[in-house]
Amino acid sequence: MISQTPPRSTEEPRAPLRRSLALERLFVEKLYQQIGRPAIQIVLWDGTVIGDHASPIGRAVIHQPRVLRRLLVSPILSFGEAFAANELTIEGNLIDVLVEMNRGLTRVATPHFWPTFFSRQSSRHTFAASRRRVYHHYDIGNDFYKLWLDKQLVYTCAYYADPDATLEAAQTAKLDYVCTKLRLKPGEKVIEAGCGWGALALHMARHYGVSVRAFNLSREQLAYARIRAQEEGLSDRVEFIEDDYRNITGQCDVFVSVGMLEHVGPENYRTLGEVMGRVLTAEGRGLIHSIGRNMAKPLDPWTVKYIFPGAYAPSLREMMDLFEDEGFSILDVENLRLHYARTCTDWLARYETATSQVRDMFDDRFVRMWRLYLASSSATFVSGDLQLFQVVFARGTNNSLPMTRGDWY
Amino acid sequence: MISQTPPRSTEEPRAPLRRSLALERLFVEKLYQQIGRPAIQIVLWDGTVIGDHASPIGRAVIHQPRVLRRLLVSPILSFGEAFAANELTIEGNLIDVLVEMNRGLTRVATPHFWPTFFSRQSSRHTFAASRRRVYHHYDIGNDFYKLWLDKQLVYTCAYYADPDATLEAAQTAKLDYVCTKLRLKPGEKVIEAGCGWGALALHMARHYGVSVRAFNLSREQLAYARIRAQEEGLSDRVEFIEDDYRNITGQCDVFVSVGMLEHVGPENYRTLGEVMGRVLTAEGRGLIHSIGRNMAKPLDPWTVKYIFPGAYAPSLREMMDLFEDEGFSILDVENLRLHYARTCTDWLARYETATSQVRDMFDDRFVRMWRLYLASSSATFVSGDLQLFQVVFARGTNNSLPMTRGDWY
Repeated sequence: MISQTPPRSTEEPRAPLRRSLALERLFVEKLYQQIGRPAIQIVLWDGTVIGDHASPIGRAVIHQPRVLRRLLVSPILSFGEAFAANELTIEGNLIDVLVEMNRGLTRVATPHFWPTFFSRQSSRHTFAASRRRVYHHYDIGNDFYKLWLDKQLVYTCAYYADPDATLEAAQTAKLDYVCTKLRLKPGEKVIEAGCGWGALALHMARHYGVSVRAFNLSREQLAYARIRAQEEGLSDRVEFIEDDYRNITGQCDVFVSVGMLEHVGPENYRTLGEVMGRVLTAEGRGLIHSIGRNMAKPLDPWTVKYIFPGAYAPSLREMMDLFEDEGFSILDVENLRLHYARTCTDWLARYETATSQVRDMFDDRFVRMWRLYLASSSATFVSGDLQLFQVVFARGTNNSLPMTRGDWY
Repeated sequence: MISQTPPRSTEEPRAPLRRSLALERLFVEKLYQQIGRPAIQIVLWDGTVIGDHASPIGRAVIHQPRVLRRLLVSPILSFGEAFAANELTIEGNLIDVLVEMNRGLTRVATPHFWPTFFSRQSSRHTFAASRRRVYHHYDIGNDFYKLWLDKQLVYTCAYYADPDATLEAAQTAKLDYVCTKLRLKPGEKVIEAGCGWGALALHMARHYGVSVRAFNLSREQLAYARIRAQEEGLSDRVEFIEDDYRNITGQCDVFVSVGMLEHVGPENYRTLGEVMGRVLTAEGRGLIHSIGRNMAKPLDPWTVKYIFPGAYAPSLREMMDLFEDEGFSILDVENLRLHYARTCTDWLARYETATSQVRDMFDDRFVRMWRLYLASSSATFVSGDLQLFQVVFARGTNNSLPMTRGDWY
């Protein structure tokens, strides 16, 4: 089970390191057993191979003894940091290896096993903090996102109704699917909270004849969206507003938010619910699209620290805070988990063709960080650790909507 | 606003009663204002009419001064009791009048207004209590239910995909819709918890080639179901078992429960979840169909006292207790509220054609009680006070199901 092979390094050759200790090998062996002997091998810095699966799909190579010590203390965070630092490399298909590891971790990851992994992140969502976090992620450059998102720059789960759809087609299908679920009628007023680069707002105005007021905190995204609206002659029907969702005013027939809830924080769901209750008309309806969980649990600490500060994926139970106090009625919930797995896989494939440009914009460490982020996102959707919920709701007294969902298909 | 007209009694003439007092009239007038001046009139025993709506759709006639006093203390319970005793009658379409009253009550019914109305019913769901309650409602006689249910005796919300569907057609459509959502495959094993007169179990075996073990506590229902299975030659594929859901054992590909959760009690949802977790295979999936609420609130005290002892309609938040601990993933939620309104309306229409037979089986009071129960059920679905949730779930690691719901339509 423990054998010696030379480590295959993916980058420059390293100086030879000290031999692994019996205690270190024993710890990794024990860990490998505890996560259910997954179909991967773990290779230590001196070439020691741990893992006895008959047909391993890949290898995790630990190039530095210090990585192992850190993994002991906070496994997920240290895994991400070591991967970004190139002190830990993955051989084989990155997503597949991460799925295999994820499934193993899910088996052992109880609160008692790794308390740090499951400790609730303390994060306050003040107006200033929300703005800071948006800048951190979404304002790192439109040119960067253009390298690997679809042409419309839709940075949320696509809808692969056709399994052979390209990313472009699946994103357009998603925009239409959201509009269909909302049963948009020409002339209606829509408020969108968290509009990204404006793809949905522009799509709704262009194809469904509605007028849209779209809110966002990211200046880079808004600048891009406004130019697109102007170019398409939609500026009179789509207004892009730089403001927090908490400051939304006015009235609308339809409230929609795709991929913003992850940044709102569960302590603010009731506030967002109040906003929806305030702006929606008596016949109003809405759709919330968000990454979610089967049960309450924070996102992994590496993603929260390096990719999405303050982000949180709620359980359906937690999401109910949005609806209950305002007397909203849940009409429909759909879980699109495997669509998001596919979306992230498509993003990663495009990203991999553009890494030299990403390296020029940032550096090697950044290239690896975002590789891990996209691959691990796909992996967590595949392994069932994350969900994607689309929730359609209306006022509890609205009897004017069709009786069935048959018209959606 | 207060005028005098002779009360129109629907039954035998009554002895003249004392004139209403100024305080009584003032109270009713105040109440009428508080519930938003609905389109109904309230008529007191001496002919005093309260209500100034331009085109009232009906009248509530209070024939006895004591009814008014009781309404003050516990309005819903006393309304039901007075209706059953014929001390309060409704003129006009009963469902429409109840909807109008419901909408008004929803406006004022805060915990401060009528504490008794909203106090949580204390009800324990021991094995013996569950059995007793089932006897109370479901064992009052198959012949009674045959008078007004569809031919298959489906006593849950129908599915009116075709708005012109008869009750029979809509119930068959519902059975097929449940089977479609469950994606039944020939040869699969199904466990049904709370099978009523066996319509779904027999339908699944007959049309989808599965084998079913169906559990129920009602002896009358089971006796009927077993005869039907025998007559149709399905006894080898449908087993009807007299037992509590807590005693379900074995393994199944599919777990389904249509209209039982209302009798389980929220304190037992985790127990039911454990049962589902125990019996479902790794690729297993399930469907829970239940009356629900937009937010946690007990059923009205009249229904709980006279019709469904121990019944409770959960919010979606409360229903999550079924799924979270077992790592189930919610795939789909659909709200069929208006389908249940229509179902109850159809039931009531049939019931009204059979009241002389009901009177022969029971008595006048029983006739009125069930009239109010069916009408008020329809009304609460129309007014949005009750929901009907169908929840489809699977194990969180199940990646074998189709990516979309397109095949359901």
